[in-house]
Order: sequence, then structure tokens, then C-alpha cells
Amino acid sequence: MTVQDEGSEDGGSSGPKVVALGGGHGLYASLSALRTVTRNLTAIVTVADDGGSSGRLRRELGVIPPGDLRMALAALCGDGEWGQTWSRVVQHRFRSEGELHGHAVGNLLIVALWELLDDPVEGLDWVGRLLGAHGRVLPMASVPLDIQAEVELDGEVTTVRGQVACALTPGRVRAISLLPPDPPACPQAVEAIHEADWVVFGPGSWFTSVLPHLKVPELAQALHATTARRLVILNLAPQPGETDGFSPEKHLEVLREHAPSLTVDAVLADNGLVGDPRELEKAVVSLGARLVLADVGACDGSPRHDGPRLANVLDEIFREKR
Amino acid sequence: MTVQDEGSEDGGSSGPKVVALGGGHGLYASLSALRTVTRNLTAIVTVADDGGSSGRLRRELGVIPPGDLRMALAALCGDGEWGQTWSRVVQHRFRSEGELHGHAVGNLLIVALWELLDDPVEGLDWVGRLLGAHGRVLPMASVPLDIQAEVELDGEVTTVRGQVACALTPGRVRAISLLPPDPPACPQAVEAIHEADWVVFGPGSWFTSVLPHLKVPELAQALHATTARRLVILNLAPQPGETDGFSPEKHLEVLREHAPSLTVDAVLADNGLVGDPRELEKAVVSLGARLVLADVGACDGSPRHDGPRLANVLDEIFREKR
Repeated sequence: MTVQDEGSEDGGSSGPKVVALGGGHGLYASLSALRTVTRNLTAIVTVADDGGSSGRLRRELGVIPPGDLRMALAALCGDGEWGQTWSRVVQHRFRSEGELHGHAVGNLLIVALWELLDDPVEGLDWVGRLLGAHGRVLPMASVPLDIQAEVELDGEVTTVRGQVACALTPGRVRAISLLPPDPPACPQAVEAIHEADWVVFGPGSWFTSVLPHLKVPELAQALHATTARRLVILNLAPQPGETDGFSPEKHLEVLREHAPSLTVDAVLADNGLVGDPRELEKAVVSLGARLVLADVGACDGSPRHDGPRLANVLDEIFREKR
Repeated sequence: MTVQDEGSEDGGSSGPKVVALGGGHGLYASLSALRTVTRNLTAIVTVADDGGSSGRLRRELGVIPPGDLRMALAALCGDGEWGQTWSRVVQHRFRSEGELHGHAVGNLLIVALWELLDDPVEGLDWVGRLLGAHGRVLPMASVPLDIQAEVELDGEVTTVRGQVACALTPGRVRAISLLPPDPPACPQAVEAIHEADWVVFGPGSWFTSVLPHLKVPELAQALHATTARRLVILNLAPQPGETDGFSPEKHLEVLREHAPSLTVDAVLADNGLVGDPRELEKAVVSLGARLVLADVGACDGSPRHDGPRLANVLDEIFREKR
């Protein structure tokens, strides 16, 4: 039995087929909400990280960076003691003065499965089964990628390579591209996009987690061609070093620049983020979308999504009651 | 459900309660046979390794060396695709030019569970459940140990510390002791010995895997006091650096020196090892045991036990038909 089989066990009542695009903490947030809304859930995850445990593993073993994939799997872990315990193991990081310091156990487990099975998707499916995951996690591409960003500071534009450099270089990112520029997409990811009812972009690091999918040619093609509806979930705050001072409409403008012919069905923004919604409304309409304003931020005012609030609104959007 | 529950599910028909003592490849061999003979199986494993992946982990993270425990768990893994795949993952070793080189994935997994659950036995039980293990694996002691050996070469006796030094120092080992000399035994191991029908010593590295159990005071006490029968499985050949030139009877003599008042019920030796059985017979009788001679070596003549042959003979011994 695969996770996919499990997800579709209850047929019609299992919810819409949803594909969530992203990476890191943003994707963790959307998956934490989406898992309660549908049983037909596929995450398609960026594979361009070059920092931390993931960066060390890609340099030492030549593998796809596993960290964002691990985090997505943990977001989908089963509710029982089994899923919860293995999720804690997978997320556990060694702390020491030695060579293992900082490595996440799940990263090592995923890489071991890849080495043994020689198939990234099969390896991830095995970790999904271990966790009793409520959905499937796929890499955006079948090879490790590097993000190349044009960063603007005081009127000067420099090109930096790598996700870490991107985050550390002061200034605003203007655009990103991928190296290699034409990586092979994960075939199962392309298929999932074509079969989806809804494709969800964001939240997350706009340039390094949300937009990269549109730069993988086969994925971009599928994202344009699919009959699925497209939803953009806007971030709750700009991200230092990436999107300093970006308004919500600026995020959409950048999305449009990276995929000029992509149309969107709905854009979800938090009420707290939007003072005067007219500018945002304009940008939303120019994408062909409707604007959904709702309270989806955490109650403590921190710039992260609240799982249950986000889930409620997503459920209404998918049922088109909003 | 614990592994133990699983093991005793079919009550009377599940076979005798067997405790196997040892470490490394010898224990792997005895467990591979024993798992087919009984469903009530507990391995009690040495925790004195200081080499390889285990040695690095105990130095970096201060944990019990996990390698021999991992190997015992792999020997007991379930027969289906699930157990087989996770067993391969657990046994997989990273190969690189970097910091992960040589680490076994199962060692990292066991250590992560120990760090998370703060209980060595609970951590091992979780790996046992992952593998669908046919039995339970326990550490001999609750702290990492060092073996101290008296090694004799050309009439001179030197004391060496650590399993690696023991194996590398030329000469014959005369006796071993443990550091610390009075380590806390694993309570569940003591209990398993008391409740056993049979306790099996060996095969394995005589001084570093088979005899150490008798040097943990609480374990030694249980091994003397238990109403279980005691079986010694002799090695098929002397081990270079440890037991060079040792006859089978010399192995028993050394056992006696390390536990003078221990009585034994049966000693199993391979026919191929014993030319004239009279000397061996004498040593066996002096332990209070009967000698079982059988063909239990691998068919290719290599000095390792053949799983099915060993299993058949063990089954007969436990039924006392031999």
C-alpha cells in the first residue's frame, strides 16, 4: 500500500486533489493546514538549499538536498504515537562538538534510502510510510539545483549564486533563475499538477521557495496547462534580505514577472497585512484572480500562519464559498 | 504492542524462552538460527566496542556504542518487504571522503532515539518495532564499557585497554576485566535471564563478546542463579589476535577461569573442529555439561555457522533430543 492509495481510500469524501508548492517553513505551514482539509495532498518541494545539514550532504554525497523534503514529510506525519515518535526522530538534530553536529536524522535517513533504492521518489515514499504521512512529498527536480539571484543594493545589481548567498547578501532580490537552467522535473510532480483540483503557491521565502518551481521548464509548463485552479497564499510579512519592504502587491508583481502568462484564481491575504486593499485588489485582478481577505495570522501577532484558521479559510476557498 | 508481546502471541507453541549472549558477527549467527527455533528470543549484547562508527559515536556523543545492538536487531528483522527494506537501511553505511564516511545508518537512528527518549531499552524497542523484529535486543549494561585485557606475547604480559587495542595487540589474551568494574546491568536483561528456559553463550569473539557478560556483576549473578539451562556454542576456529592456537577445550577453560562456579548443561561443537574428542569431553564434563557434536559449519568450509544446520541442532538440544 502506498501513501497515495491510503489517501484515496475513502473516495469522494477525501477532499479535493491539492498540490502545494514551496519549501521550508512556509510549506510546513501550508501543509499543516492542508492536511486537515483534504486527504489528496501532494507537496512539491524546492531542492536548491545549499546551507546547513542539507548543504553538507549535497556536497559530501552529491545528493538532492533533503532538508525541505524532510520538513514537508514531518508536517504530514500521522497522528498516533507511531507517526509522532518517528516524526520527532526524523526532525531530531545531533548537537555535539564533532562531525555529526547539526545533521537532522531524517536527512540522513532520506539520503540512505536514496543510496539504497536509487530512486528519489521511492525513497521519500518509504519515509512517508514510516511516518504514516497524510499525503505525498515529491522533489521539484530530480537533480540538486542552485538558485542564482539578481540582488539590488543602492542602485547596483549583483548576481549571487546559492540559497545561502541569496539570504545573506544585503539588498532586494529582483529576479531568480536556476542552475542548471533546464533541470529534469520529477515526473510524478508533473503528473500531480496535471491531475490536481487546486495548486497552492506559498507562503514561504518568495524567491527561494515559491518562485523556483516556475523556473523548472516542465513544471512551469504543467502549472500553466493544468485544469487545476491556482491559489496564491501571500506571506504575512516581508522577509529580510529577500523581500525587504515588499508590499503584498509587489509579491504578485514579482510572481507575474517570473511567469507572465500564468493566471491565478484566488489570492489569500491576511487582513492584518493589508491597510488599504485597493492596490492589492488591482494586482489580484490583473492576474485574473479574486482576492480573499481573512484573519489567518497567529493570534500572538507573530508573522506566521495559524494552522486551524488557515485550514478553515482554505476549506471555504476549495468549496468556493469565499 | 511491543516486540515482546508479539513474540508471545501464540503462547505455548512459540518455543522456549531463549536468551542469547554475545556481540558482533557471532551473535548475528546465533540469532539468525535462533529466530527460526523460538519466538521468545532476547539478545543481550556487549557494549564495549570502541572502534569504527560505534567508537566515533561514543566519543562524540557519550552514548553506549550502538553497532553490536544494531547488528543484532538486523539479524532479527521481519521477513516481509517492510522488515527487509528497513533492515537494509539500518545496515547501510555511508561511503564518502567526508565526515559521514563509515557511519552505519542504524547506529545514527539508535542514538537519535536514545537522545530523544532518554532510555536505551525504549529506543531499541522502537527500532525493533520498525524492523518487525522477531525478538528483543538489550544492552548488557546501561553505560558504555571498556574491555581491559591481559595479553601475553613471548612470555611477557601487558595490559591493554579497549576492544580495538585488544584485537590489534599481538599475542594471546589471558583474561579480561571491565572498566568501570561494576557497571549497572540493564534491568530488563537481568529479568530476561531469570525468566529464560535456555541461556546461550557464543559463538563469537571469546574475550570481547562472550565473556564480558560474566564480568558485569548483576548479570553474572543472574547467569549463576537462573533456573535456565545453559548452552555454550563453541567457535569454529580460533580468532587471530585473541585466541590464536586455542583448542576447543582451552575456550572452556578460559570460560571457567572467568566464572569458576558457573555450571553448563550442554556444549555444542562442530564435528570438523574436533579431531579426538576426549580432551574436549573432559573439559565439558568438568563444567557439568554434555557434549553435542554436530555438523554446524558452513558447507563451503569457511569458519562460520550455517544458519539452518545450527537451527536444527539447537531445536533438538532445546527439546533435549540430543
